[in-house]
Amino acid sequence: MNKITIGVIGAGRIGKLHTGNIVKHLPQFYIKTIADPQIDEAWATSKGIPNITRDVNAIFQDEQIQAVVICSPSPQHAPQIIEAARAGKHIFCEKPISTDIDLIKTALQEVKKTGVKLQIGFNRRFDPNFAKIKTMLQENNIGTPHLLRITSRDPKIPPTEFLKTSGGMFIDMTIHDFDMARFLMNSEIDEIYASANVLINPVFQECDDIDTAVINLKFANGTLGVIDNSRQAVYGYDQRVEVFGSHGAVHADNNKPTNTTLSTNDGIISEKPLYYFLERYEESFVAELAAFYHCMANNTEPAVTGEDGLRSVIVSMAAEQSRRENRPVKIDYEKWSN
Amino acid sequence: MNKITIGVIGAGRIGKLHTGNIVKHLPQFYIKTIADPQIDEAWATSKGIPNITRDVNAIFQDEQIQAVVICSPSPQHAPQIIEAARAGKHIFCEKPISTDIDLIKTALQEVKKTGVKLQIGFNRRFDPNFAKIKTMLQENNIGTPHLLRITSRDPKIPPTEFLKTSGGMFIDMTIHDFDMARFLMNSEIDEIYASANVLINPVFQECDDIDTAVINLKFANGTLGVIDNSRQAVYGYDQRVEVFGSHGAVHADNNKPTNTTLSTNDGIISEKPLYYFLERYEESFVAELAAFYHCMANNTEPAVTGEDGLRSVIVSMAAEQSRRENRPVKIDYEKWSN
Amino acid sequence: MNKITIGVIGAGRIGKLHTGNIVKHLPQFYIKTIADPQIDEAWATSKGIPNITRDVNAIFQDEQIQAVVICSPSPQHAPQIIEAARAGKHIFCEKPISTDIDLIKTALQEVKKTGVKLQIGFNRRFDPNFAKIKTMLQENNIGTPHLLRITSRDPKIPPTEFLKTSGGMFIDMTIHDFDMARFLMNSEIDEIYASANVLINPVFQECDDIDTAVINLKFANGTLGVIDNSRQAVYGYDQRVEVFGSHGAVHADNNKPTNTTLSTNDGIISEKPLYYFLERYEESFVAELAAFYHCMANNTEPAVTGEDGLRSVIVSMAAEQSRRENRPVKIDYEKWSN
Amino acid sequence: MNKITIGVIGAGRIGKLHTGNIVKHLPQFYIKTIADPQIDEAWATSKGIPNITRDVNAIFQDEQIQAVVICSPSPQHAPQIIEAARAGKHIFCEKPISTDIDLIKTALQEVKKTGVKLQIGFNRRFDPNFAKIKTMLQENNIGTPHLLRITSRDPKIPPTEFLKTSGGMFIDMTIHDFDMARFLMNSEIDEIYASANVLINPVFQECDDIDTAVINLKFANGTLGVIDNSRQAVYGYDQRVEVFGSHGAVHADNNKPTNTTLSTNDGIISEKPLYYFLERYEESFVAELAAFYHCMANNTEPAVTGEDGLRSVIVSMAAEQSRRENRPVKIDYEKWSN
Repeated sequence: MNKITIGVIGAGRIGKLHTGNIVKHLPQFYIKTIADPQIDEAWATSKGIPNITRDVNAIFQDEQIQAVVICSPSPQHAPQIIEAARAGKHIFCEKPISTDIDLIKTALQEVKKTGVKLQIGFNRRFDPNFAKIKTMLQENNIGTPHLLRITSRDPKIPPTEFLKTSGGMFIDMTIHDFDMARFLMNSEIDEIYASANVLINPVFQECDDIDTAVINLKFANGTLGVIDNSRQAVYGYDQRVEVFGSHGAVHADNNKPTNTTLSTNDGIISEKPLYYFLERYEESFVAELAAFYHCMANNTEPAVTGEDGLRSVIVSMAAEQSRRENRPVKIDYEKWSN
Repeated sequence: MNKITIGVIGAGRIGKLHTGNIVKHLPQFYIKTIADPQIDEAWATSKGIPNITRDVNAIFQDEQIQAVVICSPSPQHAPQIIEAARAGKHIFCEKPISTDIDLIKTALQEVKKTGVKLQIGFNRRFDPNFAKIKTMLQENNIGTPHLLRITSRDPKIPPTEFLKTSGGMFIDMTIHDFDMARFLMNSEIDEIYASANVLINPVFQECDDIDTAVINLKFANGTLGVIDNSRQAVYGYDQRVEVFGSHGAVHADNNKPTNTTLSTNDGIISEKPLYYFLERYEESFVAELAAFYHCMANNTEPAVTGEDGLRSVIVSMAAEQSRRENRPVKIDYEKWSN
Repeated sequence: MNKITIGVIGAGRIGKLHTGNIVKHLPQFYIKTIADPQIDEAWATSKGIPNITRDVNAIFQDEQIQAVVICSPSPQHAPQIIEAARAGKHIFCEKPISTDIDLIKTALQEVKKTGVKLQIGFNRRFDPNFAKIKTMLQENNIGTPHLLRITSRDPKIPPTEFLKTSGGMFIDMTIHDFDMARFLMNSEIDEIYASANVLINPVFQECDDIDTAVINLKFANGTLGVIDNSRQAVYGYDQRVEVFGSHGAVHADNNKPTNTTLSTNDGIISEKPLYYFLERYEESFVAELAAFYHCMANNTEPAVTGEDGLRSVIVSMAAEQSRRENRPVKIDYEKWSN
Repeated sequence: MNKITIGVIGAGRIGKLHTGNIVKHLPQFYIKTIADPQIDEAWATSKGIPNITRDVNAIFQDEQIQAVVICSPSPQHAPQIIEAARAGKHIFCEKPISTDIDLIKTALQEVKKTGVKLQIGFNRRFDPNFAKIKTMLQENNIGTPHLLRITSRDPKIPPTEFLKTSGGMFIDMTIHDFDMARFLMNSEIDEIYASANVLINPVFQECDDIDTAVINLKFANGTLGVIDNSRQAVYGYDQRVEVFGSHGAVHADNNKPTNTTLSTNDGIISEKPLYYFLERYEESFVAELAAFYHCMANNTEPAVTGEDGLRSVIVSMAAEQSRRENRPVKIDYEKWSN
């Protein structure tokens, strides 16, 4: 196995997560440089990274660096994709690519032109539960899908500071569910209807955002779907999927810390779901980077393409429009624009 | 306990079911007369009913009969409610009251004027699982409800002959789910959006009907809800409910014939859900009639009122309108008319 | 279906249970007479039984009575079997037949001589869970059985008065598990080793009894088994069975009042098992009498024979001997005597 | 955190496992040397170990090496413990220490004399499920324990070559369950009765071994226990524990690859347990070495002591004696000798 030399752009929560995973679990990568305007040098040094810099150009201009892992704030994703592509580097980029559709399209054109690989960070596709669901669907275990149900509820509301710039629940949180829907159904979301409300905390209203939603999906192949979201499930991170079809149904239930139960006079008590995305999706973060390596090493199509990244953003915007205008919104991916 | 003398109107599948339950489990009722134009006399005789007749007037004109159980075809429900009320008899009536809103309103006015009790046959409210959910909500086990999810899937499609006159899936099948939603949420459905399709069998298209649906609900108190329906779940009758709230969630899972599992090299296999509504809701059919007796004996409000019956029909119609016009439909129960 | 006219002997808790079931669920029986020295006449009248008497001979001497259901105190079982057999009446008898092996053998000889049917009240064989396990074994779902595990724990300790005369936990409570073991394994218990202790309440010591036990079984066919017992499971009646074999395993888990769960910050809480044998084994009590009718109507072997009744008592005695002498006890059913 | 320099003795399956875990997950250790008479040099080199040798003395004689991880064949464990202790090195040793009780005692005396730490490789104590059970017991969640049930079944029989020298199922396989029993109950096994048979494969008979067992335990504190074992569960590695007490019960169920289910006309199918000990106990192997580091770094008592290692061997021998003599065997740990 030939090591691929990479640069990590952005060392916030997710940048640290990917870096830690690469150092610990992914010897197929060599992190030569990490760049962040507010780099935590002590941490980066502890990870054994040779070049620690505040200047991202140190990555783009380094000819030894073959690929970049973009973990910067979302508004920088698209410009950095463009720069990386022009520098001939393969790209792993966190979601969302951008909230500016035209800019995403420009970035994807650049990627296409330069022929570099681009994989978007929809890690949940690599979660063992959901990957197993996908496999069962591919093996035709349930016949033709008729209904998709995704339950996706966070354990606690994000900090207010974050909410102010998050772009809203659909683009920040539900985007993962939209990608999951597209991934499992193997069909595009043709029309969307989102109903939503502020039921948990008035702070969401202040941010012109919502905290609870039920989102109706119609797929191009006729399948129906529904996503329900909450920003706060007090019993923990609730991440379930169900696909119902002509010959059966598949379910993915929550993962728990242990398979123990306590039986007392109060009832039979089992553990709550794993608390947050870091624990719940731990394996998937490693697996998505392994897949990124694989597509570069074998010159195959990335498991999550730039087009996937674009479409999930468009769906998120359509959802936002639907809930604001309270009407189903038909999605024309080609024509959708800012 | 004083026995209440009743007449049963209609001896088809549901009439036979109620009659059998009364004879076996409900000694508080005395069935004096059963009337049906095509009465199965041998069966009625075996149940020990003294008067077996083809003429429903034998019931309305019998002063000893204190209450009627209406199990006739749906179009006769409302006229028979009116006749029974005028004859001063309490009424248990199967759902739906009618598909003619104005006629329902006329019938309910007659009931109000005469002061007889009217209970509608939404038996699922009395199912042990759903009744337990209701109790947990009343005891504030999950705080304020935010989301309601109902999964309601039949095990097999009805006969084509039936489909032609069923009035459509929403009024025939989903009406139970609409009533369950109103019952559990303790709030009216304020707006509805129904997406639906024919995915199981083209016969539904021929009947201008649908076989698969996802229905979005907005309640007056701001809660969101969703119902998913299928006319054919090959693994059996799928009847689940989930209510999610500020302090937790409650779920009702399917009932199975036994709690056994088989572990083999093929996996860990448990039983399918109870196959059909007769087995699944067996206890609820008895319990709803016991509640009917109770409201008469104690002069209390029926557990399922005529207004409940009216509103579930209106919701069904709004759902039908929504899916045909592909838009959310706001429901004004006072003004809704044919 | 020809009704069989019966007499019920004994109207204590179990006599009332069987009578109630017959009146409500088993029209194939006609209870002509019920006899008990302390008969509760109001109750018997409410059940519509024509002859209510304190004298059991009114049953034995009545030529119209074709069969008896013996629910008297255990010491009277064997003598009443003998009398009933001599009077030519078929017999359903509660367990245990007797604690006097020679007397049981005498009674069984009388039954054999007269050719009447004798069924013993091991109702758990008719429980849907355990009957399903039996069916799966018969259908060879797990290959050759290697291990049997029975967990049988009562929800609360019996009254002290009862304990003084119960004969000990093995003959009173574990006897059901011994019968279940023989029933499922289709092989005789060849050797037994019982370890036991008083861990719940010193009252058991005062009664020269035990409250907790682990009992090792070796079957004639080489299969191994284990039963664990407790007189007090605070979370409710714990009744589970597992059979492990060359090609898989079958499990029967506990039954619960509903299939609901509550998810909160404290965990995911499901209901406790059904509390006591009356609810837990409700269906089995009806089914065992239906089977009794069937063996009489069709002149077939009873589902639970007198020999089954004898052997379960012998096993109970061997268990008692084993725990007192702290050694494995080999069982020779032919030679076992008082 | 100060790194501790270690030498690994033995590079067979378990030696490779520990080495891999240390390199990947345990940066608190520095493996300076690995020794094995048949060392796989390519593998060792790939792990980045500086000294790769066939001579174990290279470890004992290296003053920089502070601790050893003994993964050699069992007969070498005790002699190597003695040598390591004399060389002043802390010791992590795989189970069993030896099958020669006197030799174990000699080794433990040497450890005591030299004051080095000795931890035995009973990894299951560190399994998240069983560790959680232990915590719940310590937090008094179920009151006083009355009954312990351990189910421990391997997925497939070992190679015949291995069986010939394994020392028998109790010392090879059940020893883990004996340690688990002592660990959870916090009380010594005072008496044991083992019943066993050859039901899977005659090869066990040829090796004077058994493949199926039920083992009765009496603890010093009066608690009762039972272990059931099989060498071959076709549905996968079955590793469950249940502790029943005065105020409730705790269960640890099997772990599965995913929490998905498939519902079809054949039933509701969930995944089989994780297949083998490498996957099932993956986390525990890392955690036991982290605990070993902790006891050295903080000069605390090892989590699994040499005395624990000795006692589990004595219990295994008592089990073997019990099944051969078919009688309960009382265990005097002080006097037990070869």
